Amino acid sequence: MRFLFTAALFAATLYAQRGVAPYYEDTNNVPVSPEIQADRKVTFRLFAPKASEVVLMGSPGILEFTKKPMPLQKDDKGVWSLTIGPLPAGFYTYGYAIDGGLRMPDPSNPNLEVRRWGATSSFIVPGGEKSVIEERRVPHGTVHVEFYDSKNLDTERMVYVYTPPGYETGKVKYPVLYLLHGNGQIEASWTWTGRANVILDNLIADSKAKPMIVVMPYGHVPREIKTASPPPANDPGAIEKELLTAVKPMVETKYRVLTDRLHRAIGGLSMGAGQSMSIGLHNLDQFAYIAAFSGGGNRTEWEKADPAMLNQKLKVLWIGCGTEDPGYNGVKGMDDLLTKKNVKHIWNQSGGGHSWPNWQVYLSKYAPLLFQ
Amino acid sequence: MRFLFTAALFAATLYAQRGVAPYYEDTNNVPVSPEIQADRKVTFRLFAPKASEVVLMGSPGILEFTKKPMPLQKDDKGVWSLTIGPLPAGFYTYGYAIDGGLRMPDPSNPNLEVRRWGATSSFIVPGGEKSVIEERRVPHGTVHVEFYDSKNLDTERMVYVYTPPGYETGKVKYPVLYLLHGNGQIEASWTWTGRANVILDNLIADSKAKPMIVVMPYGHVPREIKTASPPPANDPGAIEKELLTAVKPMVETKYRVLTDRLHRAIGGLSMGAGQSMSIGLHNLDQFAYIAAFSGGGNRTEWEKADPAMLNQKLKVLWIGCGTEDPGYNGVKGMDDLLTKKNVKHIWNQSGGGHSWPNWQVYLSKYAPLLFQ
Repeated sequence: MRFLFTAALFAATLYAQRGVAPYYEDTNNVPVSPEIQADRKVTFRLFAPKASEVVLMGSPGILEFTKKPMPLQKDDKGVWSLTIGPLPAGFYTYGYAIDGGLRMPDPSNPNLEVRRWGATSSFIVPGGEKSVIEERRVPHGTVHVEFYDSKNLDTERMVYVYTPPGYETGKVKYPVLYLLHGNGQIEASWTWTGRANVILDNLIADSKAKPMIVVMPYGHVPREIKTASPPPANDPGAIEKELLTAVKPMVETKYRVLTDRLHRAIGGLSMGAGQSMSIGLHNLDQFAYIAAFSGGGNRTEWEKADPAMLNQKLKVLWIGCGTEDPGYNGVKGMDDLLTKKNVKHIWNQSGGGHSWPNWQVYLSKYAPLLFQ
Repeated sequence: MRFLFTAALFAATLYAQRGVAPYYEDTNNVPVSPEIQADRKVTFRLFAPKASEVVLMGSPGILEFTKKPMPLQKDDKGVWSLTIGPLPAGFYTYGYAIDGGLRMPDPSNPNLEVRRWGATSSFIVPGGEKSVIEERRVPHGTVHVEFYDSKNLDTERMVYVYTPPGYETGKVKYPVLYLLHGNGQIEASWTWTGRANVILDNLIADSKAKPMIVVMPYGHVPREIKTASPPPANDPGAIEKELLTAVKPMVETKYRVLTDRLHRAIGGLSMGAGQSMSIGLHNLDQFAYIAAFSGGGNRTEWEKADPAMLNQKLKVLWIGCGTEDPGYNGVKGMDDLLTKKNVKHIWNQSGGGHSWPNWQVYLSKYAPLLFQ
């Protein structure tokens, strides 16, 4: 069967003829990158014939797998490449630094994390202990992308909501986890990049976690923090008010969720860890579970809190951090404080840094403890 | 209220101290870009102190608003900038070409289109005739991100499904539009970039379109076309089989949709236009509406088709193209063929090129004609 044309290819050809081509890399000359080989070596490639330097980077500040930036080498066709590994199974983020530092994602790779300071690319090396992030042919839940009208902020905002497999055809109500993202991330981050929906699908399929609804709101107030620089200060009181007076009522109206505190959890990463610790602490009548991934909380307010009350109210208080996280000492300090106060909690120290591989594993450890 | 730390800022500081900084732009020194001013002038900025050239580009091959690439100027702090306009209200895509051509999206702008050959950035200049793409405080539908198990392809694939406002709380069944993306795009493209959900919300709020379900499947077979280069040839027969034997049964099981041909439409952009024209033509017993946005169809098979049959079966056959589209002649050729054959159809010629601003407007013109 013959189609008249493939317009994108057509366009590239025509514009090359018109002489605009020098300003564009050839969109049809995009090399395979990253190429994940059977032996778990990974090859990165970039077509950039005029670049003077191309360096592989890990996620911002943290080179998960090389520990240092590594230069790619150019071949005679203008394709830069570098092979590293074998890498352990898991989730990796990376990008390129061009001509002395300008960061860019890998144009060959459609798996992108959107952030306030630019996108980063990601890939998965399959197998191994982190296979909870890998999509399997099990029943899948649905991620709902919702606008909601916030009377609180007098604007519309977005929230992502995961419903477990069978939600549409069933009648039962589900417990709910409010899952908060980090600074500079967006409401899509926990699913689009973090694969929270895949993690929950896998845990539920293996009967390791109860079926639950996961609500992923936007964590910055105002919304314009996405593009403002320097970003306005994050007021955790503002996000607490938004979560409790706008997001939660919308969720409890639109979705079949249980509304007692024993069926409501909160957790988050980095900035969202701090938000979860404060919102949870301020609202023990509403949350029986709190988790902080790679982030602390307001130590002053936790110092003042009554240990007996905390131990009575909180079914799980979960704190995790990687030893290579630049904020490790702060998070460990919260663990020490809770230990000193005899507040029951789980301290999960891992390797690795301030990055998705840890947050994915932390979620896979926290979710099974909920609503049991 | 004091938080212990904002980990991302903390990380950037620490790593700068460790001397890795030269390989990273400062993630906290991301200038505002694009800045859309009240007079509809737009300023683009990029922090790239070591770059030797930064040029503004439009979407691939097509400079919507400048007609030619334009250089940015560097200030003494390493921030490149350029102001253009005033621009007409509407939707724009752009990126930067660095140091002689390497394309990259704007790291300051989280609005990205993901494509096989690299992401591009986008922004909206508010107001004007294209306001159908602007989010308004009206009732909103929901976008469902679904995995489905394709027995046909023996793998799992994804599909995005828009349900109109009120779907969750109602009982009625809805008509359905299958909306297909272009070459190199993904199942998220029509919503994430094209704002199809916002367009439908607005049309439904204004009683200009019937409430409907919109199904946006992944249009490449196999899935690996996302990263393969050169891409495997697109077999339109393969996507037809996938749509009819895997996507459609899943939708009709999981969603409340009407299943007669008068309540089923198809349409798509570019590659998806060709797919829609073929799938629709081959299955007139299943589709009463066909649209092709900036793409043609298999002219040979349309030449052979019986005009009386087409006129009897098709309630709407809608074809649109921009005069600056490199594929204009091919699409216009289909219009001419249909006119010559006396096949009833709508020919929508517009300005502009092979790009989202046209596809968004085309959808806003096609959707109101459906299911009336």
